[in-house]
Amino acid sequence: MVASAFLPELWTEILIPVCAVVGIAFSLFQWFIVSRVRVSADQGASSSSSGGSKNGYGDYLIEEEEGVNDQSVVAKCAEIQTAISEGPVMISATSFLFTESRYVGVFMVIFAAIIFVFLGSVEGFSTENKPCTYDETKTCKPALATAAFSTIAFVLGAVTSVLSGFLGMKIATYANARTTLEARKGVGKAFIVAFRSGAVMGFLLAASGLLVLYVTINVFKIYYGDDWEGLFEAITGYGLGGSSMALFGRVGGGIYTKAADVGADLVGKIERNIPEDDPRNPAVIADNVGDNVGDIAGMGSDLFGSYAEASCAALVVASISSFGINHDFTAMCYPLLISSMGILVCLITTLFATDFFEIKAVKEIEPALKNQLIISTVIMTVGIAVVSWVGLPSSFTIFNFGTQKVVQNWQLFLCVCVGLWAGLIIGFVTEYYTSNAYSPVQDVADSCRTGAATNVIFGLALGYKSVIIPIFAIAVSIFVSFSFAAMYGVAVAALGMLSTIATGLAIDAYGPISDNAGGIAEMAGMSHRIRERTDALDAAGNTTAAIGKGFAIGSAALVSLALFGAFVSRAGVHTVDVLTPKVIIGLLVGAMLPYWFSAMTMKSVGSAALKMVEEVRRQFNTIPGLMEGTAKPDYATCVKISTDASIKEMIPPGCLVMLTPLIVGFFFGVETLSGVLAGSLVSGVQIAISASNTGGAWDNAKKYIEAGVSEHAKSLGPKGSEPHKAAVIGDTIGDPLKDTSGPSLNILIKLMAVESLVFAPFFATHGGILFKYL
Amino acid sequence: MVASAFLPELWTEILIPVCAVVGIAFSLFQWFIVSRVRVSADQGASSSSSGGSKNGYGDYLIEEEEGVNDQSVVAKCAEIQTAISEGPVMISATSFLFTESRYVGVFMVIFAAIIFVFLGSVEGFSTENKPCTYDETKTCKPALATAAFSTIAFVLGAVTSVLSGFLGMKIATYANARTTLEARKGVGKAFIVAFRSGAVMGFLLAASGLLVLYVTINVFKIYYGDDWEGLFEAITGYGLGGSSMALFGRVGGGIYTKAADVGADLVGKIERNIPEDDPRNPAVIADNVGDNVGDIAGMGSDLFGSYAEASCAALVVASISSFGINHDFTAMCYPLLISSMGILVCLITTLFATDFFEIKAVKEIEPALKNQLIISTVIMTVGIAVVSWVGLPSSFTIFNFGTQKVVQNWQLFLCVCVGLWAGLIIGFVTEYYTSNAYSPVQDVADSCRTGAATNVIFGLALGYKSVIIPIFAIAVSIFVSFSFAAMYGVAVAALGMLSTIATGLAIDAYGPISDNAGGIAEMAGMSHRIRERTDALDAAGNTTAAIGKGFAIGSAALVSLALFGAFVSRAGVHTVDVLTPKVIIGLLVGAMLPYWFSAMTMKSVGSAALKMVEEVRRQFNTIPGLMEGTAKPDYATCVKISTDASIKEMIPPGCLVMLTPLIVGFFFGVETLSGVLAGSLVSGVQIAISASNTGGAWDNAKKYIEAGVSEHAKSLGPKGSEPHKAAVIGDTIGDPLKDTSGPSLNILIKLMAVESLVFAPFFATHGGILFKYL
Repeated sequence: MVASAFLPELWTEILIPVCAVVGIAFSLFQWFIVSRVRVSADQGASSSSSGGSKNGYGDYLIEEEEGVNDQSVVAKCAEIQTAISEGPVMISATSFLFTESRYVGVFMVIFAAIIFVFLGSVEGFSTENKPCTYDETKTCKPALATAAFSTIAFVLGAVTSVLSGFLGMKIATYANARTTLEARKGVGKAFIVAFRSGAVMGFLLAASGLLVLYVTINVFKIYYGDDWEGLFEAITGYGLGGSSMALFGRVGGGIYTKAADVGADLVGKIERNIPEDDPRNPAVIADNVGDNVGDIAGMGSDLFGSYAEASCAALVVASISSFGINHDFTAMCYPLLISSMGILVCLITTLFATDFFEIKAVKEIEPALKNQLIISTVIMTVGIAVVSWVGLPSSFTIFNFGTQKVVQNWQLFLCVCVGLWAGLIIGFVTEYYTSNAYSPVQDVADSCRTGAATNVIFGLALGYKSVIIPIFAIAVSIFVSFSFAAMYGVAVAALGMLSTIATGLAIDAYGPISDNAGGIAEMAGMSHRIRERTDALDAAGNTTAAIGKGFAIGSAALVSLALFGAFVSRAGVHTVDVLTPKVIIGLLVGAMLPYWFSAMTMKSVGSAALKMVEEVRRQFNTIPGLMEGTAKPDYATCVKISTDASIKEMIPPGCLVMLTPLIVGFFFGVETLSGVLAGSLVSGVQIAISASNTGGAWDNAKKYIEAGVSEHAKSLGPKGSEPHKAAVIGDTIGDPLKDTSGPSLNILIKLMAVESLVFAPFFATHGGILFKYL
Repeated sequence: MVASAFLPELWTEILIPVCAVVGIAFSLFQWFIVSRVRVSADQGASSSSSGGSKNGYGDYLIEEEEGVNDQSVVAKCAEIQTAISEGPVMISATSFLFTESRYVGVFMVIFAAIIFVFLGSVEGFSTENKPCTYDETKTCKPALATAAFSTIAFVLGAVTSVLSGFLGMKIATYANARTTLEARKGVGKAFIVAFRSGAVMGFLLAASGLLVLYVTINVFKIYYGDDWEGLFEAITGYGLGGSSMALFGRVGGGIYTKAADVGADLVGKIERNIPEDDPRNPAVIADNVGDNVGDIAGMGSDLFGSYAEASCAALVVASISSFGINHDFTAMCYPLLISSMGILVCLITTLFATDFFEIKAVKEIEPALKNQLIISTVIMTVGIAVVSWVGLPSSFTIFNFGTQKVVQNWQLFLCVCVGLWAGLIIGFVTEYYTSNAYSPVQDVADSCRTGAATNVIFGLALGYKSVIIPIFAIAVSIFVSFSFAAMYGVAVAALGMLSTIATGLAIDAYGPISDNAGGIAEMAGMSHRIRERTDALDAAGNTTAAIGKGFAIGSAALVSLALFGAFVSRAGVHTVDVLTPKVIIGLLVGAMLPYWFSAMTMKSVGSAALKMVEEVRRQFNTIPGLMEGTAKPDYATCVKISTDASIKEMIPPGCLVMLTPLIVGFFFGVETLSGVLAGSLVSGVQIAISASNTGGAWDNAKKYIEAGVSEHAKSLGPKGSEPHKAAVIGDTIGDPLKDTSGPSLNILIKLMAVESLVFAPFFATHGGILFKYL
């Protein structure tokens, strides 16, 4: 029955790194193209002197407009760019990351030590080999080795995640002003710069994540040899490392960005009646930095975490299935082959946006971005078929909580596909509920007629309602993949959803880049027409940001379940019976954790925003000439408030996430911990989706009123009308929901699951002491 | 090992109905006392002429004040009273209930038919006896008999629930104006009238629920004879009947009351700047009626449902435990004995408020109400000990999913106690998070400084945070009771929490009565001093209302779990394993249902409120002299809008609740249904608690600013200041959260569970057709 995969092992060894390197090269190439837009004032307004005719860069002259050669605007842009990305006054995004990285460093050292000690203690730090669990006649490496290698994998995952986030943010800040400058030439040019910059981030992250994982596996294999169970257990540390950095990115970044945003809006827009992104507002730089920190670095590390965790969950289950037992390396690497294929598919998909078609009008932006999703999904379906055909034996067995289940390769193909297409459905539902082209957001906008209260009631109801279809999509994916291939099926379904991660990240990162380009246009005092173009880019970006969040939470749900399954497999649990007191209280308390966590993050944003409001008010009151634009605000203090708040306020929710599995596992044991994981998963997904969509809907309801493109929208506007004021209140409430508490919940459910997985042997050996001694 | 209970069967047969009759008599006696406050104008201002010296009613003259004998005020009160309770213009609360009851009638007939047909089909409508499941040598009654008797029990439960709700509302509307009139004599007098009226409702409901259940069991026993399993399975229909009426009370009533309230506030307070409850506001009568409909009838039927369901769950499990197998009638009636004891304990507790102590100052009101909770809990602990000692054998066995578990009587005592005390803890935590005497609400009030957005953010965070301790309290109760006595333990823990239901309902119903008394004082144009007194009563009532809701959801959680346990026992399921695809998708979808349901109810309130706003605006714009008070508004149209909206909008959420178990059970089978029930339970509890507390906190934050009792509060006020306006917006958003969507979730989780329990044999026989044919 046990045949090997069609693809020879040597080819697998070559193909995976080649795909990863291609991805990195493509990413660098995109960066190179973006870098050719010159920002320094003395060299002229654009890359005209050095521009060739590649990629449509030769034809800019026919679109040239007034202002393109206005040196003062370019100088101003360059100045703002410097302030954001390299400023000497500690007000740059980089400086935030450096401040944060000190704390991250301390955390990493402590947590690495915990991993080593806890896992090492499983066999009392014995250095002797032991009989393998899957085959008693063979010997496997000691728990101490797993402890050591898990720790190394953890550090590698963490460093890769931090570097990817950092580089993504670097290119985003790098691209902001360039997008603004290109917007002078036309909306298509600006779109391409923003999109390419997003693609840099997407490909860099997907490819480097794959490459580091692949290299790590091969290096660890030198020590582990035939003990694949130990090898892939140690690899789980990689997922934990990636995901724990996402905690800093999502939670810390989320608090940072929304403290600045809410604070800036409350005083600027509501009290002082000055426009968004007005340079007179002292919190405006902090807000711009925050967009990069939270939406780019945070989103990147979140999806990187999901990707690393899904791969680890699949690998650890595969290692105790026939792939691992028969040492079929190609089949073992099936998760990595899917990701490799994903990079190639996304590369082709990207060309559709940048080279095959050209954006000529504002209304083409949203369809172009949506097409990216559709194209990548369709091509990837073929790609998965190819990988499943060459990378898998036609029949094999998968570990299913104590038994081995026979699976066919076409079944695994369906598992991956169902995840991939569920992602697309979630994306479209999210778009329907958050784009102001459809009735849900228009209804919310309409409810602003009767004030902020009805706006909030309708917005909350919209968020709750938007949960229904995504949950059914996730449920169907789980049912199909679980029925076909147990937890391995769920893990590869998650990987299917994440296989187009490069494209997903590109369109997601595009959003904040456009947003900040608009901000720079405003601050540099560019003409109304240019601001209109960046606004159009931004509006499309709002919707894609919501889609990206839907995607992130959908994949987080699948990933967590896969990790949960891997955890119970590793901990030797065969049933998690709701009809036992230990499990049901775990479920109940687990379902409560997302609320506790959200309470912390919401309150953090609120408190930090209050501090920001006080500082902004103080500056408006004490700095003479600030409102008139003759004096400069003190941006640095506002940045410092956001930085300090984000780091201080991140600690309690961070502790909640990191300590819960340790406490529950140690004191109450694996059954209760299983309950907690399942409870937090099923409850957290709902809040995360509803919070993201509610926030997105409020944001776009406000934009709908502001843009006033239909009769209905005009009857609600213009800016400053009572309905618009009500809409601004909704938008402000939505900020922490959609950018802090909602997306942070992904981390909560994933990180608790992967942490449980890593510490599973420890809990299985030493856990549940409360019940042991009662 | 199997000894009988100490209390002889005959005594049990006598004691239970005696306690129930004592409760009803006490209730009528309270009604009699309240009725002695005269409202008709021609008979004078108070009952002075006919008053004796009982119960402190002889000493009112020493407190007499100006206005007591003002005939015009009394006439006005009488007129308003008539308008609310008996008005000829269809604007009374009664008329709403009659309109609703037509729909209820249709629903009852259809659903009774479904029960009969579905349950009858289990054995193909066979009329032959079958071997019993617990003892194959005996014969038990056919499924057709269970179908018929379940249907009868369903109708009895529904009728009892409707009648209790109706009578409670009747006494509440009856008491409104009387409380207002007594407020002229002093705050103590007014308090006692309001509290006694609440007690009428509490005792009537608790006692009649017990009596009808008891009589039903005894009548059914004539047919069933020794087949106790069949007998108590048929009795579960009683719980379903009670709970399905709660759907109408909670959801329909909730939509009714909040459509009116939100609509009245949006135009009256925010646009027209007239006070709350101003008679010029056309929606004011609908608002007052709504308080009675939603808070009194809705809450009453909700708690009645919980009580009936917890009893049924305990009885059905007991029938297949040693109590049932050995035919120990006293032990079998243990749940009813606890409720009987509860009536006596609450009776004594009530005397502490009405006779043993007297309220002399405003600040004594809240402690008096809180003491009611503490006193009843302490005395009840002793009562449970007595009942457990005389009503149970010292050792017995309880059915535990396929096996029999040995339990001691002291363990069952602890199960009941842990539920009782958990209820008290939930009550106090709720008070801490919703009373403006503590920092959480004060922080929310403080956040109004920066506007409505921060108020909403802080309020939502408060609600999320308030979930933590109640969930731990519920989790501990479940763990203790489940570990000691499996699902029977959970059921009696729920009964423990509900054993003081008479007192709980009394202090809960007190709230809306005081609220409306204030409304009548405003409308009748009474002096400022009287309004201050009713406001003080009302503020205390807001907190007790929140406590009542905490209580209701806490008990709902325990009840649902007990019902869930009874369901799986009856359906023959022994494990509900999260690690199977059927269960995990059930969990996930189940956790989504509360969101779907909340989306419907929130949107319903929003839409109905918008209609109300338009009507109120129309009247202000088209009726000349309305604002000046020279013309009367058209109250009837507003009442009609609320009535129509509540009935129309109730249908979709009602269908969701009623059809989900049927669809899931029929198509997907009992495993998936188990998952759905567990998921909706663990997720619904959280939203229900957080929604109720968020709403309560916003309401009291607004009251805190209005009352301005501290320096801090004064710095935020007065009425009309910017922070106050922000607080009003929060209050309006909180209305549907705390009075519609939040409390309705209790019904969702309980009703789905009890419906599953009733239909369990049908699902076990014919369910899961989708998997059978796939």
